[in-house]
Amino acid sequence: MLSRMTLEQFAEALAAPTPTPGGGSASAQAGAMAASLVQMMCGLTAGREKYRAHDEAVRTIRAKAEGLRKDLLALVDRDAQAYDEVVRALRLPKGTDAEKRARSEALERATLFAIEAPLAIADACAALMGMACELSDKGNVNAVSDVGVAALLAYAGLRGAVMNVRVNLKGVTDDTRAARLRERVRRLEVDSEKLREEALTAIYVRTNGR
Amino acid sequence: MLSRMTLEQFAEALAAPTPTPGGGSASAQAGAMAASLVQMMCGLTAGREKYRAHDEAVRTIRAKAEGLRKDLLALVDRDAQAYDEVVRALRLPKGTDAEKRARSEALERATLFAIEAPLAIADACAALMGMACELSDKGNVNAVSDVGVAALLAYAGLRGAVMNVRVNLKGVTDDTRAARLRERVRRLEVDSEKLREEALTAIYVRTNGR
Repeated sequence: MLSRMTLEQFAEALAAPTPTPGGGSASAQAGAMAASLVQMMCGLTAGREKYRAHDEAVRTIRAKAEGLRKDLLALVDRDAQAYDEVVRALRLPKGTDAEKRARSEALERATLFAIEAPLAIADACAALMGMACELSDKGNVNAVSDVGVAALLAYAGLRGAVMNVRVNLKGVTDDTRAARLRERVRRLEVDSEKLREEALTAIYVRTNGR
Repeated sequence: MLSRMTLEQFAEALAAPTPTPGGGSASAQAGAMAASLVQMMCGLTAGREKYRAHDEAVRTIRAKAEGLRKDLLALVDRDAQAYDEVVRALRLPKGTDAEKRARSEALERATLFAIEAPLAIADACAALMGMACELSDKGNVNAVSDVGVAALLAYAGLRGAVMNVRVNLKGVTDDTRAARLRERVRRLEVDSEKLREEALTAIYVRTNGR
């Protein structure tokens, strides 16, 4: 399991000239770190007199971030496993017409499954970007740069995951489904740019104002 | 050592409500993953007939990325250690004038040391963004999304590290030095936006064109 590797081992595994683990797993790990930093900020804010007005909001975010951290760590592994299925399907024989048909069906199934993981990564990262933005305003000023890093990592995880969805979309022959997925990731990207700007501006203002 | 922790343990340590490890270490880890993905792309490109024209350039990038991966993993630890020194200095007694002076000198020394780590992270990530851009054009088309993730992670690492430099700059009383550092990170940020746009555009074009 990749999530049980050390940072050094994981970096080594990513660097190897094999399709997995690749950008999908790295995007999930970026998202998991973003979730951790959101949680850290909440822990440094909740229960403090100075931030009492935001206590309930902060505790709600902390619980959500903890769940997303676990989901994203699981996705580090799931993304690699799902893509391994695509590679296996690509290696199926294609000598006869029956083999070709079976291969292309297996490939389509594997591809749709392989799209699920980066979509889940992108959704989780989008949620984390929203939380980071909220905390850049409501959280402990001493940790505002940490939540800035969270926003940046969630942004990288989201855009990276979307790249992986797009690449896999080439293998989807159902045009309606492909169009729907394309529209969904396009919207995630548009939102992510807005949230990135918002978080970076809020953090710049708050770190320079203290 | 943080780099000997598993991904799960590292996420847990980041999430804890303590100042370290924080955004600086997470930025370094994002950079290390970027270096790994650059190296992966080089490994999937070097020695292939189709990309022979770029073979030498790709091998040069691979060697550099391997060095940066090791540097950035070391910086995951070094950033946390350096910031721990700042926290220690902050806790020094400040009862008498002599104590106040000693504390503020210790704090300035620790702060300057604490700025070194994120600066090194930012420089390494800037170099990796350049490599990712070059590879998005010259590298194996099948791994172009991986190098896109590398560009995004290096961008997040750079901007995250710069936030940490900025926060620490408040503790630098030498105005000339502070101004020089501020200008240096401002330029890194400006360049990073250009490289991010460039990489994302190149990757979008290349993944849609195949």
